[in-house]
Amino acid sequence: MANNDTIILAHGEGGLATRRLIQNVFAQKLSNPILDKMEDSAIIEIDGKKLAFTTDGFIIEPVFFPGGNIGKLAVAGTVNDLAAMGAKPKYFSASFIIEEGFKISDLDRIADSFARNIHSQNAELITADTKVVPRGTGGEIYIAVSGIGEILIDVGLDKIEPGDDIVISGDIARHSAAILATRENIETTPSLLSDCAPLWEIVKLAIDKNIEIHAMRDPTRGGLATILVEISEQINLGMTIDESKIPIEPQVKSLCDIYGFDPLYLANEGKMIFIVKNNEGEKLAEVLHSHPLSENAVLIGSVSESKGVVLQTITGGRRKLIMLEGEQLPRIC
Amino acid sequence: MANNDTIILAHGEGGLATRRLIQNVFAQKLSNPILDKMEDSAIIEIDGKKLAFTTDGFIIEPVFFPGGNIGKLAVAGTVNDLAAMGAKPKYFSASFIIEEGFKISDLDRIADSFARNIHSQNAELITADTKVVPRGTGGEIYIAVSGIGEILIDVGLDKIEPGDDIVISGDIARHSAAILATRENIETTPSLLSDCAPLWEIVKLAIDKNIEIHAMRDPTRGGLATILVEISEQINLGMTIDESKIPIEPQVKSLCDIYGFDPLYLANEGKMIFIVKNNEGEKLAEVLHSHPLSENAVLIGSVSESKGVVLQTITGGRRKLIMLEGEQLPRIC
Repeated sequence: MANNDTIILAHGEGGLATRRLIQNVFAQKLSNPILDKMEDSAIIEIDGKKLAFTTDGFIIEPVFFPGGNIGKLAVAGTVNDLAAMGAKPKYFSASFIIEEGFKISDLDRIADSFARNIHSQNAELITADTKVVPRGTGGEIYIAVSGIGEILIDVGLDKIEPGDDIVISGDIARHSAAILATRENIETTPSLLSDCAPLWEIVKLAIDKNIEIHAMRDPTRGGLATILVEISEQINLGMTIDESKIPIEPQVKSLCDIYGFDPLYLANEGKMIFIVKNNEGEKLAEVLHSHPLSENAVLIGSVSESKGVVLQTITGGRRKLIMLEGEQLPRIC
Repeated sequence: MANNDTIILAHGEGGLATRRLIQNVFAQKLSNPILDKMEDSAIIEIDGKKLAFTTDGFIIEPVFFPGGNIGKLAVAGTVNDLAAMGAKPKYFSASFIIEEGFKISDLDRIADSFARNIHSQNAELITADTKVVPRGTGGEIYIAVSGIGEILIDVGLDKIEPGDDIVISGDIARHSAAILATRENIETTPSLLSDCAPLWEIVKLAIDKNIEIHAMRDPTRGGLATILVEISEQINLGMTIDESKIPIEPQVKSLCDIYGFDPLYLANEGKMIFIVKNNEGEKLAEVLHSHPLSENAVLIGSVSESKGVVLQTITGGRRKLIMLEGEQLPRIC
């Protein structure tokens, strides 16, 4: 039934289809210097004070997953978008859209997780809305969250230079893999948990240790590969990534083998990509090792003068990373 | 099928059921001095500068209605929540959650209306997110918007005093009535349009003319009656309202008669309740008459020392207004 005038799932999955939809429908009409920067958060200035402002809609299925639920995810996703701009999370808004038939006890667990995770960041929810929509199946809840943060350091894609080091804060693809295992009823021992976590603390750690951070991004939808390609295109510079350095849990690797997924394109919800000054990468990784959320941080590559993102594969080859049309796994955030 | 553990439509309709859900599930977990004020927008202070921050989820059905669409409504609803706190709208975030199968051409019309209405307020959308959810019917779009405004005057429910005048900026119940007519395929001549409109300009007008405004509220879900009862309970003061003064279009009155709806409880999307200093009401109404969005503004009553909201009816009786369990008409905003 899909034709050129129809929204398809891929339009919401952060790949090429999403980009086309945004360019065709939203970009021109709503263009302004702040939005056009396409950063994880918008930067506004209020009487000389810089604030970050970001929004995300969470539509995950299932809403409870190993390692968290949509409440925790909504906080983590928003905190991480602020943290990626060097912003300390302060104030949140939340709009809950709930299906008729949803269990109030489940909503209670979600609200509990939402509250605990906001408070763990010393932030507060200060404005909220609740709506209910009718539906046959009665299993859905969507949460749209906006966050305001106070910018502590000046970072941004425009600060990236050739030679910069690229660090990932830990193993990749664990969020998507945990969702996949849940949907497919696959039991793993030890059980595979999503990495879902708010990351302000590890960013704060890097700032406090005076690491010269140029830019950060949290690789959610589309995974590490998509985000690196996106950054590379926006800054018109290349990247070289050493595949052998990228941490992946054996369980995640096995699941990917079985289902034919590429972990480079699977979503993370508790990882940060740091792009830091030339030769600061090793030092940053060491600093990050002191925090449980980034104890496997590692330098995985660097920015280059050329174009495109090149993966030096484990087998010794070179593979150019591209953006995919959509997500391999829908509705993971 | 509904039991005590089940979300029902009334939980999202702004009446008693919504209040109970919020008190039971959200209020305690997320309590903080800003949220607990329960104003239309939260007030934050950044280096001495006061900002308003608000959020709303829009789930209207149908998404196109006489006088607007969900895009215009999302802007109007957010602008009006900011305006009610005396805040000039500045920055917006939007999270679009769209069903698979939705027409891109419809999304384009919605985005167009969204953009034009934001720009009409000299505001900008600076951060956004788009998600797609699967569904059989393929007719839905939800928009969650957050807005940041710059506070120009200090208003709030705590400023209300006995003797204050209560002014409504125009005729009531037109948004719900227009939605009802559309759903029921009723044709009216002239056609009945929703009052949906962003109201910052009329609030600015009142500020510029130095009207001593104590508080404002836009009476959306639950209508004029519910909002007045809510305010009255929060400030622990009474109100007396003269029913004969409340403007209602004849077409709206007829529709209400046919369907057995009370227009006092039907939603408005382009009206503001002003609560102003004793004897300032007539002056405010006159000031507002100069703007097309408030040419029928009128003084409808006053705040009293007693409790509850009393309606002096057209027939000479006195009727105490109460809060309803849910909305008479679901999904109107």
